[in-house]
Amino acid sequence: MTIASAWTVSAHQPVEYRVETTTDVLHPDNPALLDGERGARRLIVTDSTVDEIYGDRIRAYARTNLRDHQVLVLPHGEASKQWSAVETVLEAVDAFKLDRRREPIIAIGGGVLTDIVGFASSIYRRSTPFVRVPTTLIGIVDASVGVKTGVNFRTGKNKIGTYFAASRSVLDTTFLATLDARHVSNGLAEILKIALIKDERLFDLLEAHGSTVLRSRFQSGTPVEREVLERAIGGMLDELRPNLWEHVLERVVDYGHTFSPTIEMRALPELLHGEAVALDMALTTGIALHRRLVTPEQADRVFTTLTGLGLPTTHPAMRLDDLVRALEDTTRHRDGRQRLPLPVGIGAATFVDDVTREDIAAGLQAVAVLSTAGLEATA
Amino acid sequence: MTIASAWTVSAHQPVEYRVETTTDVLHPDNPALLDGERGARRLIVTDSTVDEIYGDRIRAYARTNLRDHQVLVLPHGEASKQWSAVETVLEAVDAFKLDRRREPIIAIGGGVLTDIVGFASSIYRRSTPFVRVPTTLIGIVDASVGVKTGVNFRTGKNKIGTYFAASRSVLDTTFLATLDARHVSNGLAEILKIALIKDERLFDLLEAHGSTVLRSRFQSGTPVEREVLERAIGGMLDELRPNLWEHVLERVVDYGHTFSPTIEMRALPELLHGEAVALDMALTTGIALHRRLVTPEQADRVFTTLTGLGLPTTHPAMRLDDLVRALEDTTRHRDGRQRLPLPVGIGAATFVDDVTREDIAAGLQAVAVLSTAGLEATA
Repeated sequence: MTIASAWTVSAHQPVEYRVETTTDVLHPDNPALLDGERGARRLIVTDSTVDEIYGDRIRAYARTNLRDHQVLVLPHGEASKQWSAVETVLEAVDAFKLDRRREPIIAIGGGVLTDIVGFASSIYRRSTPFVRVPTTLIGIVDASVGVKTGVNFRTGKNKIGTYFAASRSVLDTTFLATLDARHVSNGLAEILKIALIKDERLFDLLEAHGSTVLRSRFQSGTPVEREVLERAIGGMLDELRPNLWEHVLERVVDYGHTFSPTIEMRALPELLHGEAVALDMALTTGIALHRRLVTPEQADRVFTTLTGLGLPTTHPAMRLDDLVRALEDTTRHRDGRQRLPLPVGIGAATFVDDVTREDIAAGLQAVAVLSTAGLEATA
Repeated sequence: MTIASAWTVSAHQPVEYRVETTTDVLHPDNPALLDGERGARRLIVTDSTVDEIYGDRIRAYARTNLRDHQVLVLPHGEASKQWSAVETVLEAVDAFKLDRRREPIIAIGGGVLTDIVGFASSIYRRSTPFVRVPTTLIGIVDASVGVKTGVNFRTGKNKIGTYFAASRSVLDTTFLATLDARHVSNGLAEILKIALIKDERLFDLLEAHGSTVLRSRFQSGTPVEREVLERAIGGMLDELRPNLWEHVLERVVDYGHTFSPTIEMRALPELLHGEAVALDMALTTGIALHRRLVTPEQADRVFTTLTGLGLPTTHPAMRLDDLVRALEDTTRHRDGRQRLPLPVGIGAATFVDDVTREDIAAGLQAVAVLSTAGLEATA
């Protein structure tokens, strides 16, 4: 050996992104998609469901406002969240001869679509900006707020991906007018998550008005709708901001995401993400009840609210053995400790490391009882 | 629209990595690969050429020092630098049930191999640490010093990838004992690059001792060998450190990398990366001569040194039309300006934006003359 030296490199990568709202983003006069530049070139990526409903408006918008554009349509749905979809985007970017310094990719679609496009953007020439336009409620309150991109790999949900912020996320609730009720519920699950762990006022709103906003799809323009969304998005951002790269492993926003990845991947394509999260919240509420972290009355309010939001509280995929394995899996990804967020009353959370098979079994039993009680109450 | 708000997120991602040297890293008593932990689990990825020469030693090392290990062997060479190789690594990581918090992937191989493994590491669960052990000179002085990962995509060299630092790069020049002369020259091209743009002393060393170190493969342990490597690595790190993510587009370390990507991808698999860089340096020296940024005597010293390092100065792939297109391509990636680094004398550089087709033609002509002069001088 001829040299004996060591060098250390320390640096900080600055990351900045903007989450902004607009009304009717596809109106030809709306400049929100244009970064202040009319007559530019843009590659627009969307999914088949959005294309069916909004494809004509997207193309009309592009013809009016862009010098040159291409619309790439990817298949809709979780099953297409695979590397091959990322490759399709990369090929389109390449064929479009996109100038990554001036021509951000525009992604218009649900969380699956924006996760795919975000992943492709992050790796094309090691980073190409993209603008994210979520068309679903879960996209608006969850996927578009953070910096995670990715696709599924083998049996692993979002197993490959990057931390990469959209330069801008443009939120437009007018898209929700055409969202079916089940997908509205899907997004309400993530809003309920924020409520349960940190925002009692938000829970009260969901408890009192959940089924109303589910029906109105956030199209009534009431102060309640506005407050629900602002609390959900603002609360989520407050949690993400200091921990964008998840160096801190105890994240309250992981609530509902301990058992759900296993439930969701097992039940694909039957369960939506938010539905799996709802089942996880039901189970962990059951465990918290068993551990006397929530009272029977509080647990009952949670289950009634879940039901009011159109969300499931129990499912055949919730089998004890699988749930025990799910916790083991998650523990491995949380550096050997469970770091399981459990609700404390309503609007607060704690982390525990010692949940046993017996706790999960007791939680399941509580779920069965509370779900039946809910059924009886609504019968 | 029910909400009208905007949120901004600003954060800094801390990045820290270490480049360290060792002697005989595969000696069973050498702890450099172990992060201070014997009896751990490790996935080791290497390429077929390294496996042929060092596979037995790698496995013996692993048997002695690890509780559990797997060795994954990827095909050698630039042609295999494709997504499919990344996927092979991801599948192995998944099958190994690697704990990304405790079990860094170990990559032992040339620049192609470590770029592939680095890319896979960066996206598996959005970041999994890896330790990089370069086995080639270009790996030691170039690929292992920076934070770029990636593979080729369609006709684009390194078109997809990430900025992701190996947690540690472990440099061991004893590997170079088995490196063929052409690959030693390949690495010397990147060392010469550093010399030409910023380190006249390093150029003097290469001019005087280049053919000696080429023969000795850095195995003699002389002060010259040590100084050449330390200046090359230290000089490279000094340039990278303030600009890890390439936000500043005028990078002197891009010298030799304006025309070479096109030359290299066109001539694959005929030309090695360093050989294409050498051709680029020859051409840009010719252009600099034409523009009176270097004297004829300095240009002659550069060409003589290139030849002494076993590097080409001219090649049939250097066609005027292609070179003009190559500059246009690079200009597009440098935000619309050429930002072409040209040598100023020896050991300094400047950036120009106004190189014309005529300049390139004149540069090519100078290359022809200087290459012939070199041939005559050595004849």
